[in-house]
Amino acid sequence: MAINKPKNRLSAQAYIDGVLSGNRVILSRAITIVESNLESDKALAKTIIQAILSASGHSMRIGITGVPGVGKSTFIEAFGKHLITQGHKVAILSIDPSSQRSKGSILGDKTRMEALSTLESAYIRPSASGDTLGGVANKTAESMLLCEAAGYDIILIETVGVGQSETAVHGMTDFFLLLMLAGAGDELQGIKRGIMEMADMLVINKADGDNIKKSALACQQYKNALHVFPESDSGWTPVVTTASSTTNTGIDAIWNAITQYKQLTTNNGYFIENRNQQQIRWMYNTINNELKQLFYGSKDMAEQLTELEQKITSSKIAPIKAAQDMIEAFKKRYE
Amino acid sequence: MAINKPKNRLSAQAYIDGVLSGNRVILSRAITIVESNLESDKALAKTIIQAILSASGHSMRIGITGVPGVGKSTFIEAFGKHLITQGHKVAILSIDPSSQRSKGSILGDKTRMEALSTLESAYIRPSASGDTLGGVANKTAESMLLCEAAGYDIILIETVGVGQSETAVHGMTDFFLLLMLAGAGDELQGIKRGIMEMADMLVINKADGDNIKKSALACQQYKNALHVFPESDSGWTPVVTTASSTTNTGIDAIWNAITQYKQLTTNNGYFIENRNQQQIRWMYNTINNELKQLFYGSKDMAEQLTELEQKITSSKIAPIKAAQDMIEAFKKRYE
Repeated sequence: MAINKPKNRLSAQAYIDGVLSGNRVILSRAITIVESNLESDKALAKTIIQAILSASGHSMRIGITGVPGVGKSTFIEAFGKHLITQGHKVAILSIDPSSQRSKGSILGDKTRMEALSTLESAYIRPSASGDTLGGVANKTAESMLLCEAAGYDIILIETVGVGQSETAVHGMTDFFLLLMLAGAGDELQGIKRGIMEMADMLVINKADGDNIKKSALACQQYKNALHVFPESDSGWTPVVTTASSTTNTGIDAIWNAITQYKQLTTNNGYFIENRNQQQIRWMYNTINNELKQLFYGSKDMAEQLTELEQKITSSKIAPIKAAQDMIEAFKKRYE
Repeated sequence: MAINKPKNRLSAQAYIDGVLSGNRVILSRAITIVESNLESDKALAKTIIQAILSASGHSMRIGITGVPGVGKSTFIEAFGKHLITQGHKVAILSIDPSSQRSKGSILGDKTRMEALSTLESAYIRPSASGDTLGGVANKTAESMLLCEAAGYDIILIETVGVGQSETAVHGMTDFFLLLMLAGAGDELQGIKRGIMEMADMLVINKADGDNIKKSALACQQYKNALHVFPESDSGWTPVVTTASSTTNTGIDAIWNAITQYKQLTTNNGYFIENRNQQQIRWMYNTINNELKQLFYGSKDMAEQLTELEQKITSSKIAPIKAAQDMIEAFKKRYE
């Protein structure tokens, strides 16, 4: 409906041309379209994405995670500056489905990454908001395509290492980097199970001053631990290393390792195969999320399910029977 | 249709009474009903499961996994005999969605667990067959309920540690035990990523003869590795130990640890909370599998998806657009 259409929209072609010519202002406005929940914007976003698709993909996509306090923003600032010195254009995005609750916990604070944000070759975009992880992840993935089409050849996607968003980031990046701190022995740092096994690289951050010895020790412990981890399909052995954003130590070695990873996986075919699989999974995940929305998306259904959950945990109904009854009702709704 | 109804079926009540009185022959026939794909049997299975539901649940459910060659059947035989000596009744089930292809790779071989199968307090059932992991897992989970209702107070669910079935077993058991071999250093033993992190206990098996030293070393390495793993929600620290089914070493310590686990998680509330969550997830998984069947289950759909996958990997269509188009078509089918 025309009534809902915001006034300040450009034509689809203007967004497409602007993004493809690397215009940062238009890039930002195109990302706003992708992030919008308005129906008219959704159609516009589809057109834009479809048009820039063949110009996307030419970047190294790097996921970066770690719990709050691990020093993600200072690390990304130091890492990003190093990449730009090497002649790269770097875009920094984030996934944070909790950003509405925590009021912009990642990339939302304007004072963060100050030095980086003033550089012409860096593009920083705060996290999209949304109700579902699937929705936020889709927006971030499409923003990534726009950044690539605008000429950014390295994409850093930041997430907080405490929830499910890591799987989403892992599913849209080529390389997954986990930041850790040298803790006291068995300090567990709040990292969720399974995240460590996704990492292509573990970086013990803040390895400076009094922390250097502890960090070296932690580094060795994690190396021993990863040693017994099962091998990744990529053929890559995860790297454990230390870094300091304050003293700028270890940053270049991290980029070297990522370059080696790209070389190895390009040669053995994993890089492109992984991307293809990610794209295909993206379609299926979107379909499956929409299907669930169709099934679970009504208020009536939510009430019925709550009731069933109670009956199940009090052994009044078998879970399979409950499921089958609900599916029958769903089918009838559509008949 | 009456034509499809097998002749040798009992009444629902006969199955229910037989199972509840611990009659092994009737238990086997009831499991056959649960495993059957006939429509008339499915209705019968629903009735039986619903009726025995309140008599189920009173067991310790233990998942056991490890790659082929790790010695699962001899371990289960030794472990099962130990449990029976302690006065327990033990049922042994398995999940193996590949069993049709590999012709009964687990529990199918009648010469396996020979000593155990002759004992009155042991009940052994080969793996159900089926096309989908979800289907096989549902059958195994319902067979587990039947065994519990028949008085078995320890259920061992075996699976092969190479695929997705571990997640299914982990989702229906209280305790997850991973069998490993002492390998040469960084030998990775074919265990898939993520499985090690699900384990409540790692057992280095075949720790006998020339293997004793190597096993002790491997045990220490895995202990160090688990040390840096994130903590489990159960509050339990995974145990690493060695065992030999040949010399019967370490078997009692394993059961002691499981008993301690049960004590700990009963006291901190995790045991019952985990079971409730498993039951609820079981309903949702079943619904989601059925939904996918509704959506993907036609030949026409399969062809369209194959075509879309090719368009996606050649960047001709964006994954999200492909997904949205398919969902629109699905909605129209039902309108």
